[in-house]
Formats: sequence, structure tokens, C-alpha cells
Amino acid sequence: MAFGWIDEQAAARRRAGLVRTLRPRPADSPLLDLASNDYLGLARHPEVVAGAEAAARTWGGGATGSRLVTGTTELHGELERELADFCGFEAALVFSSGYAANLAAVTALAPHGSLIVSDAGNHASLIDGCRLARGTTQVVAHADPDAVGKALGTHEGPAVAVSDTVFSVDGDAAPLAGLAEACREHGAGLVVDDAHGLGVLGAGGRGAPHAAGLAGADDVVVTVTLSKSLGSQGGAVLGPARVVEHLVNAARTFIFDTGLAPAAAGAALAALRLLGNEPERATRAREVATALHARLTAAGLEAVRPDAAVVSVRAPSPEEAVQWAADCRAAGLLVGCFRPPSVPDGISRLRLTARADLSEEQIERAVRVIGGTRP
Amino acid sequence: MAFGWIDEQAAARRRAGLVRTLRPRPADSPLLDLASNDYLGLARHPEVVAGAEAAARTWGGGATGSRLVTGTTELHGELERELADFCGFEAALVFSSGYAANLAAVTALAPHGSLIVSDAGNHASLIDGCRLARGTTQVVAHADPDAVGKALGTHEGPAVAVSDTVFSVDGDAAPLAGLAEACREHGAGLVVDDAHGLGVLGAGGRGAPHAAGLAGADDVVVTVTLSKSLGSQGGAVLGPARVVEHLVNAARTFIFDTGLAPAAAGAALAALRLLGNEPERATRAREVATALHARLTAAGLEAVRPDAAVVSVRAPSPEEAVQWAADCRAAGLLVGCFRPPSVPDGISRLRLTARADLSEEQIERAVRVIGGTRP
Ligand SMILES: Cc1ncc(COP(=O)(O)O)c(C=O)c1O
Ligand SMILES: Cc1ncc(COP(=O)(O)O)c(C=O)c1O
Repeated sequence: MAFGWIDEQAAARRRAGLVRTLRPRPADSPLLDLASNDYLGLARHPEVVAGAEAAARTWGGGATGSRLVTGTTELHGELERELADFCGFEAALVFSSGYAANLAAVTALAPHGSLIVSDAGNHASLIDGCRLARGTTQVVAHADPDAVGKALGTHEGPAVAVSDTVFSVDGDAAPLAGLAEACREHGAGLVVDDAHGLGVLGAGGRGAPHAAGLAGADDVVVTVTLSKSLGSQGGAVLGPARVVEHLVNAARTFIFDTGLAPAAAGAALAALRLLGNEPERATRAREVATALHARLTAAGLEAVRPDAAVVSVRAPSPEEAVQWAADCRAAGLLVGCFRPPSVPDGISRLRLTARADLSEEQIERAVRVIGGTRP
Repeated sequence: MAFGWIDEQAAARRRAGLVRTLRPRPADSPLLDLASNDYLGLARHPEVVAGAEAAARTWGGGATGSRLVTGTTELHGELERELADFCGFEAALVFSSGYAANLAAVTALAPHGSLIVSDAGNHASLIDGCRLARGTTQVVAHADPDAVGKALGTHEGPAVAVSDTVFSVDGDAAPLAGLAEACREHGAGLVVDDAHGLGVLGAGGRGAPHAAGLAGADDVVVTVTLSKSLGSQGGAVLGPARVVEHLVNAARTFIFDTGLAPAAAGAALAALRLLGNEPERATRAREVATALHARLTAAGLEAVRPDAAVVSVRAPSPEEAVQWAADCRAAGLLVGCFRPPSVPDGISRLRLTARADLSEEQIERAVRVIGGTRP
């Protein structure tokens, strides 16, 4: 039968205890959420919701076409201008997802004959970008500017180094200053994915590149998502105007994709404005992460010191990670559970996300549950 | 300079008259829209807008996480059930875009050692899916079941044929029955992208696979988008439950992408229910396309007979196509303009879309403007 081979893979997954199943959540879940990427607690903020509603009323349910045909509303233009201004870049281009933004940035900036130097811990969307790009990819050791410099040194012609700014699994930060230096030494571009940095790192949440003094540089391109700290959906590429113009003309996931839904653009814009007016939200997300880490460590758990708002806790095995997360859930706490094949190093972990709106009491409760259910 | 090579490409584009620029549209554009993919005129329907608003109010601006973590709401489950039921498939899986759905379906169903037989006219997202997949791709002549059968005959092991159901450039339909026969003869799966068929073709808009008697078949997988006839954003894969379960576990653009924004899910669900209650919308979209084609042809224009709601009109050159579209716009009519590199055959054309809510008077006006501005 045509898709019979699928059953063998399903059986193997079952044997390995690696079956994933969807679990639809209710709107009024009583669980304490330490699993979402809603770092600033904005997804359900009244102004963000109002932004989505107003955009849907004004513009309709969808953008109705690709960005170059009918899918660019004035709202998209507004969001792009304010995103670029906030993060300190010349221009921005909005996509239907962060995934699409990453595919676009990497493929359009790595033409035939070019070299892509890619961190071994990069997000799936950057990896897929490398695989789709016409350039050649060289994967280098995690968070290692020397390795990046060495790889760039082997190549003549256009080159880019590509990295997450905050790695999604362990929440550790990339050595941005070192990466930029290595790139500059070799005349290469730097493309960084600030999905977990925007809204959390940098002055008022302006992101990791801003914190590293790279905002607005003519050799730096940043991708972001609107789906995490901005509580919406979508992605964007920020950079020099010439790069954005290039993407408009060359990036397939821009040209051949329907524009971001107005409601998502409206929600993201409302969140961005909130963040501009309340920069302490970013500080608070980092403080919560630090507090969470300190208490987990004090409780004897093996947690990675957070550079942003992701706190990762090691689990002994995939099965025990799944059981641990299930036990947390039974005790009223929702945590993420990362395990093969979603982790580059094969190590399973609980993944906790700090939210700016978590109270001291909630942090304490979370640590109590995690400690009390440890395998 | 790092991105200096971009300027050469930009100059070449300028010399070739192929520069694309974004043109943000106002909410109250006076232009007659024959460019969007809002085939049923539902994007701004009050119930669709209300669906988006209610979902944003209930669930927030974003899904807050990937589908396997926090990004599956009960609303996503509802949309998946109703989409599968409407189109006649066992199960459905919703993605953040049709582009992501296509990447998922092709990559997850074409493992290492498998063969993908891909129509030469396929959409960019299917092509990118082929390029990302571990299987080997063989591109075959456009709309040619014999060529598909021949290609499949050269291979042992898992294989799929991949095709648009309605090709987005010329609006012509794929020979689905012939493709299914060729696939079955060789034990191969059939993966078809019904982006332009859903809501337009089949009984009550159930899509091209439904019309071809392929709905619910255990060797057929269909991708759709929520961004065209359903007036929203997002995509879905429809097929046997085992295939959907496989995608949940294996498709990178599912696992590593934030869930579709609730407002988009709510808008799509409202549109789907409207279509269920008002099946004549699908018929009307096809009638408008037929009328448009008949009048364009009567006016001496070279238009492709539409199989769905896309009507393509040939232009003599890219420059003249651009000028033609600009002249239409100046005369109050918005039409699409497809030209290299967005057309597989290098032929530039105006691309018109029929909408179920176009009046006879509007169709006449459109044809008058297009005829009056022809190069
Ligand atoms: C580092 C990183 N980049 C990109 C993405 C993709 O962004 P989006 O979910 O908006 O597609 C994610 C997660 O979803 C991510 O963690
Ligand atoms: C045939 C076809 N497939 C897939 C897509 C992508 O769908 P989406 O825009 O929802 O990403 C499109 C157009 O956008 C299309 O025309």
C-alpha cells in the first residue's frame, strides 16, 4: 500500500517511547503555564486582543493575496516601519511566520557559490534554510566564533554566518560580538535569528543584536518572530534597506506566500507599542528566569543558567522526561518537554519559560512541583 | 562589503525591468479587485470577521507555542475536524500557512530512498518541499499522467507523485483521475495541492480531489490553504489518520513552528461553515470565471479557459505586462501581473481571479478596462 512504510516508523516510535500526540487545550486551563513562549504575557493582553480585533474589522480575515499582489495592507507597512525603528534597523519585512522569515533570509543571502557557516545548535528553520539555499553549508561547533572564522577563511566569494541569538533548547546566548568580529574579518555577512531575544534582551527588549551594538549595521541581518514575546503570529527580517529590497525580489517564501493575516499584524503591532511604553516588561522576564534558575539549582536540579527567558532542566532519559512533564501536569504545572529528535545533542530536558507576568508565588509553586516530581 | 553582491543583482533587475515593489493598500480602496485570491468574497464577510474577533477574544493574539507544546487550542481541533469532514478525509492537520503545509507533506512523505515525481508547473512551495525532502525528485512534463507513470516505473520502494490540482499561474486543472491511476498502478502515493480548488471545485466547494472521487482514499494526501477561498491565513494537510499522525511526529514545519493564530483559525472556521451553508458560492465563483473568460475571448484577448476561478491573459512581454497592469490600475481595476521569474514558462500574463461576489456589471467593466488598455 502506498503509505504502508509509515506504519513501520510508527511502530518504531512506539517501541522507543517517542510518540507525540496533540492535546488541545481549553481557553480556561487551570494549569500554570511555564511552557509557552509568551515571554511578556502579552498574548491575552486586552490591547493585543483589541489590536487583532480592530485589524480584522478593518481589513478582514486574511490578507487575500501574496504581498506583491494584494497582500500588503497599510497595516503591514506600519508594522514594518515600527519594528525596524524599535530594533534599530533601516528596514523590515514581515512574513507569515518566523519559520518563513528564516527560510527567506538564508536562501536569499546565500546564492550559488556562496558559503553558509551554520552553528550546530541552530533552529530547524535555519537548518532548512541552509538546505534550501544554493550556497554550500558548513556546520561548525556550537557558539564558537573561532570555528566560524576558520570556516570563513576557507572560502572566496559571498559568505554568511548564521546563528540563533538565543538557542531555543537550552536558552543559552550566542557570542554575537565574537561572531560579528569573525564575519567582519572575512567580509562576510552575519544573519542571526532573534526569535527568543526580541522583547527579552537589549534595552527595553530591543533584542540581542541591539544589546551587542549590532543594530543597524550594514553587514548584519536579523530575523525575528512575532509569535513569542509579541504574542501573535508571523515573522520578520530586519536589516539594511538593500537587503529587504533584495528579499522582496528574490525570497520565495515571501513572493509565493499569502501575506500575514491582518489580525496577526494588528496584535503584533499592539504588543510592540505596549513594549515600547512599558520597557520594564523585558527586564521582568529576565528577572523571572534568573529567579527560576536560582531556585531550581537550590533545589538540587541541573538547570542551565539562562541568558534570556528560557530555562532548561536536564532529564535522565526521554521516557523519564515525558513522565516528569506528565507528573508536573498532573500537579497543575505545564512545562515543555524536549527530547530526540527535537534536541541536537540527544539529551532530553524539561524546558521552562519565564514570563514577565509570573508572580513570586507562581515561581515558587513551579519549583516545588518540578522538584517534587523529579525522576 | 558583506552584501555588496546584492547591488549587482539589483542593477540587473532594474535593467531588465523586473523590479518588484510593495504597494501598501488602504482599507477602503476604490479599485475593483480582480487580483486577490478571495474567490468566495469571504475575507471581509461579517461572519468571518466575527470568527476572527471571537477567537482573538477567547484565545488571545497568538497560539503561544508550537502545536505540540501549547499551540493546539480546542479551536484548532475543531477546525481540523470540520475541514476533514467537509473535504471527505479521515483527518486534517492545520499549519501556519499553505506553504508550510506543502513543505511538511512533501518532506515527510518522501523519505531517504524514495522517489518524488513532480509536475513541471508545480507551485514554489511544492518545489521547495521536493528540494528539502530526502527522497530524489524527478520533474515530469506538465499535466501528463503517462510521464508520471513512466517515472514511477523506474523506481523500487516508496514513491509519491506531487501536483497542484489547479495551477496557480494559468488556472488549468491537473488530470487527477489519470494521476491517481498512474500512482495506483505503481503502488505510489498521490499528494495534491488543492490551494485553488478548495471552495471552488467539487460539490459545494469540497475541492478537486472530492470532484475526482479521491476524497478519503488511503493513498491520497491533499494540502489546502486557508488563505484563499476561506479568506484567512494558514494551511492544512488532509488524508488518512496514519499520515496525519506521521506528520505530527515527523514534519519539521509542524513540529518547529508556532501554531496558527487563533484569529486565523476562527476566521477560516467561520468561512468553512458559511460555505457549508451556502454551497452556491462555489458554483458562482466558477460561473464568474467562465463569464470573464468568454467576454475576454470575445474581445479578442488570449485568455486560458478556466478550470477553476483563475483566468490568465497572455501579455506580449514582461514590460508590456507591467504597463498593462498599471494602466488597468489607473482605470480603477486591480489585476495580477505574473512575469519571470514567477512563471515557469517565462511567459508574462495578467492574472485575473473570479470572485463569487462580482456582479455582471463589474465583470463587464473589468473586461472593458482590460480590452481598452491592451498593449
Ligand atoms: C529560534 C527559533 N527560530 C524560529 C522559530 C520559528 O518561528 P515561528 O514559530 O514564528 O515560525 C522558532 C520557534 O517557533 C524558534 O524557536
Ligand atoms: C498552489 C499554491 N499552493 C500553496 C500556496 C501557499 O499557500 P499560503 O499562501 O497559504 O502559504 C499558494 C499561494 O499562496 C498557491 O498558489
